[in-house]
Amino acid sequence: MAARILDINCDMGEGFGNWRMADDAAVLPLVTTANLACGFHAGDPVIMMETAGAARAAGVAVGAHPGLPDLAGFGRRVMALSAAELHACVAYQVGALQAFLRIHDLPLNHVKPHGAMFHVLRNPEMAEAALDAITGTAPGAPIYWLVGEVFTARARARGLRVVTEAYPDLDYADDGMLLVERRKRPVEPAVIEARITEILTRGTLTNSRGTTLPMEVESVCIHSDGPNVLEVLAAVRRAAEACGVALACATRGAAR
Amino acid sequence: MAARILDINCDMGEGFGNWRMADDAAVLPLVTTANLACGFHAGDPVIMMETAGAARAAGVAVGAHPGLPDLAGFGRRVMALSAAELHACVAYQVGALQAFLRIHDLPLNHVKPHGAMFHVLRNPEMAEAALDAITGTAPGAPIYWLVGEVFTARARARGLRVVTEAYPDLDYADDGMLLVERRKRPVEPAVIEARITEILTRGTLTNSRGTTLPMEVESVCIHSDGPNVLEVLAAVRRAAEACGVALACATRGAAR
Amino acid sequence: MAARILDINCDMGEGFGNWRMADDAAVLPLVTTANLACGFHAGDPVIMMETAGAARAAGVAVGAHPGLPDLAGFGRRVMALSAAELHACVAYQVGALQAFLRIHDLPLNHVKPHGAMFHVLRNPEMAEAALDAITGTAPGAPIYWLVGEVFTARARARGLRVVTEAYPDLDYADDGMLLVERRKRPVEPAVIEARITEILTRGTLTNSRGTTLPMEVESVCIHSDGPNVLEVLAAVRRAAEACGVALACATRGAAR
Amino acid sequence: MAARILDINCDMGEGFGNWRMADDAAVLPLVTTANLACGFHAGDPVIMMETAGAARAAGVAVGAHPGLPDLAGFGRRVMALSAAELHACVAYQVGALQAFLRIHDLPLNHVKPHGAMFHVLRNPEMAEAALDAITGTAPGAPIYWLVGEVFTARARARGLRVVTEAYPDLDYADDGMLLVERRKRPVEPAVIEARITEILTRGTLTNSRGTTLPMEVESVCIHSDGPNVLEVLAAVRRAAEACGVALACATRGAAR
Repeated sequence: MAARILDINCDMGEGFGNWRMADDAAVLPLVTTANLACGFHAGDPVIMMETAGAARAAGVAVGAHPGLPDLAGFGRRVMALSAAELHACVAYQVGALQAFLRIHDLPLNHVKPHGAMFHVLRNPEMAEAALDAITGTAPGAPIYWLVGEVFTARARARGLRVVTEAYPDLDYADDGMLLVERRKRPVEPAVIEARITEILTRGTLTNSRGTTLPMEVESVCIHSDGPNVLEVLAAVRRAAEACGVALACATRGAAR
Repeated sequence: MAARILDINCDMGEGFGNWRMADDAAVLPLVTTANLACGFHAGDPVIMMETAGAARAAGVAVGAHPGLPDLAGFGRRVMALSAAELHACVAYQVGALQAFLRIHDLPLNHVKPHGAMFHVLRNPEMAEAALDAITGTAPGAPIYWLVGEVFTARARARGLRVVTEAYPDLDYADDGMLLVERRKRPVEPAVIEARITEILTRGTLTNSRGTTLPMEVESVCIHSDGPNVLEVLAAVRRAAEACGVALACATRGAAR
Repeated sequence: MAARILDINCDMGEGFGNWRMADDAAVLPLVTTANLACGFHAGDPVIMMETAGAARAAGVAVGAHPGLPDLAGFGRRVMALSAAELHACVAYQVGALQAFLRIHDLPLNHVKPHGAMFHVLRNPEMAEAALDAITGTAPGAPIYWLVGEVFTARARARGLRVVTEAYPDLDYADDGMLLVERRKRPVEPAVIEARITEILTRGTLTNSRGTTLPMEVESVCIHSDGPNVLEVLAAVRRAAEACGVALACATRGAAR
Repeated sequence: MAARILDINCDMGEGFGNWRMADDAAVLPLVTTANLACGFHAGDPVIMMETAGAARAAGVAVGAHPGLPDLAGFGRRVMALSAAELHACVAYQVGALQAFLRIHDLPLNHVKPHGAMFHVLRNPEMAEAALDAITGTAPGAPIYWLVGEVFTARARARGLRVVTEAYPDLDYADDGMLLVERRKRPVEPAVIEARITEILTRGTLTNSRGTTLPMEVESVCIHSDGPNVLEVLAAVRRAAEACGVALACATRGAAR
């Protein structure tokens, strides 16, 4: 089944203090949807304020990107939080971002957990805790998440809109498990182009070992901390154009 | 001029992780208004979640108590933040607390900055930055602050309701300057009783050097990290009762 | 086999900023050996400086108590650090403590990892990484650790002196696995007394399910954040006295 | 008076977690002396471990670069620490670095405080507290600091070797006051060359307003977080060569 619209979501605002992870100003015009770091794995109040403003100016939809409380590990180290801790950490971060969205008169487009939350949210109790936090803080907010995951199923069971997504700049295991890296490596633009084309034309993704996985998704996630993120984004856009697929935020329609 | 109603506001939820600063469960029934730490000088997401719930159960009004980003200094060390940093730090913290209030279906009663913000907010540019954050995040939220301060005047100039407050468990300099301490010492209950009585009957406060300062206020602030906070609160309540003054949150009327 | 000397080691200096976890001044005279928190799970530079000075004044031996980088979790949440991260985190903390010992002209008595390191160090690669950090930073420093653990075996394989220890204020699983809690609960002094007596007279410990585990140890570890730590320590000392066992730091002889 | 040897010291290892501030691998071969961040304003244990190893491989002398405890502000925001806090923070950081130097079998070349410590150490009590920490932790370690400052005079009064330094990539006020910036801007290489030439040939520095200040120094400090640091370092080296001045760490002789 061929998609007619593609959403490109990108983790953004992932600096801290004087540190910057990506050239967000260059990335913003190339994506449709921004997942804003909320201060736990990256991001700080000033960066959140500025990035929300820049996203608004660029017409990019903004969602919350809550992470584990681990700046040094960029939220990519699994931590044994309790369900109550996960609940409170997600609610805190979503609320903090909502403050900046209110200041910029922007809606909260969605919530998408970050990094090692991928592993944490495979536990049903943890998935429910995160969902409680999201629905308690931002009732009805869509979720961006992966196909076939517990968190996706639980969100849908609550009636939440889930925008499914693929990670063309990461590899997958043969069982469909996403291989999260602590630090991003460059990915060949040709590889990205091939993966996007496969996703858009066949609804599958073939991993580095040649296994073909089902990948019918509405969105692709690109990491702004990838060393060649601008090349990667250009490759995504080229592939989408070649497939005749328009780019738009999945939860805002094809308006953009 | 004698007040007929007294608001007792108290800094609460000022633990972090496994650490607790005060016996909040014992303090809550004795106050009318709680200023909840928001994670920068103290407080963490779990504590905010729990304390907001406990305050709701106790019928105590809850406001945000944003602090400087300095856990090790409990927000009581002056830091040279820029106006943009202060703005973003206040907005972030208010938003984070609002998440927990939404979950507990509680309104945000007020905003009251913490600790060394007292010094920072004497700078008009900084006062405006903090007010921008508050009105941008929580339009119309009342402010709790001291008599005769820049921040109080600027808030009123914007049409905000300011509940003025005295600090009977701290000392004042002869020019009315509040003497913020890094760590609280015990205060004699008799001293507290005398100060409350003076505030309620004469609208003045006499400092430790015998200088009498104007102190017409609607609220008194008690620090929950004072070593004998329960004695201090009992003394406040005795003095109020002896003066025939009812206790109630200033911004909720005498309903409580 | 009956021991003739017992070492009581205790985690200390586990406050942070204005927060305190235990009444260290009351605990110090009751123990022989202090494990000082080094700033990652608890402890801050001022507390380390003060606690090292107090231990010196009390004649208590001081060792490093490095933890996972997780203040909010008190180092009791397992985190997926890499071996390089664990190595660097342990070296950093041991070095930081050595600065304060140098100022107080105290030797480093030992190194004992904290909290969830118990789980992390069951992985041989991680155990070696921690040992590399210890021998690189404090060559020859003794280790305090549990009987039958990978970390103990690996330390001994390097020729390091390991002081084995029991945890009478925690429970053990039937396979000898220590049950680390996020927050300590009170333990009945009578239970402590019985466990110490069993350890000293039979070299075993019977867990809460009635399973008897081998427990031939030189030291017992008491947590200073236990709510009734002073009662617990008194119970340990009573039991040791009743058994005719002297109290002394295991690595300093029975001099104290 | 013309210098015959110039020391180029550079702040290094100023990343945190996944963030990097500078291309340290490219900077190292161009400097003689590295000031390693110690984890408070920047730097983390892994980065310290790696940077110490890289400096050793490059034959660059390594000193400690302790900062204020403020990651978000990069140690460039003045904070009102007490003298006891400053003492303990400096000792902690020096000790932590010493651990990594011990592992790499490197001596501690010097100590040089970072960022807003410039302002803090103009207070004599604070200068003494920092010196107590340095002499208590690293007896006899040389200090790198500015001409005409309280901290320089106090260090010399204790008999410590002080390597004086200029900041050619910052501006000075007419009273000789260094103008510390929160975030570095690029500096024209031609400006750097002119400043270095003036320092080396006349022992003066002319600020942006045309005021000539005495600047007889042994070292120049270049910030690795300057956006064009490699250009700046090349300019320093060109100017030194043109003046017939050799580059060497001031406290290791001209051996390098």
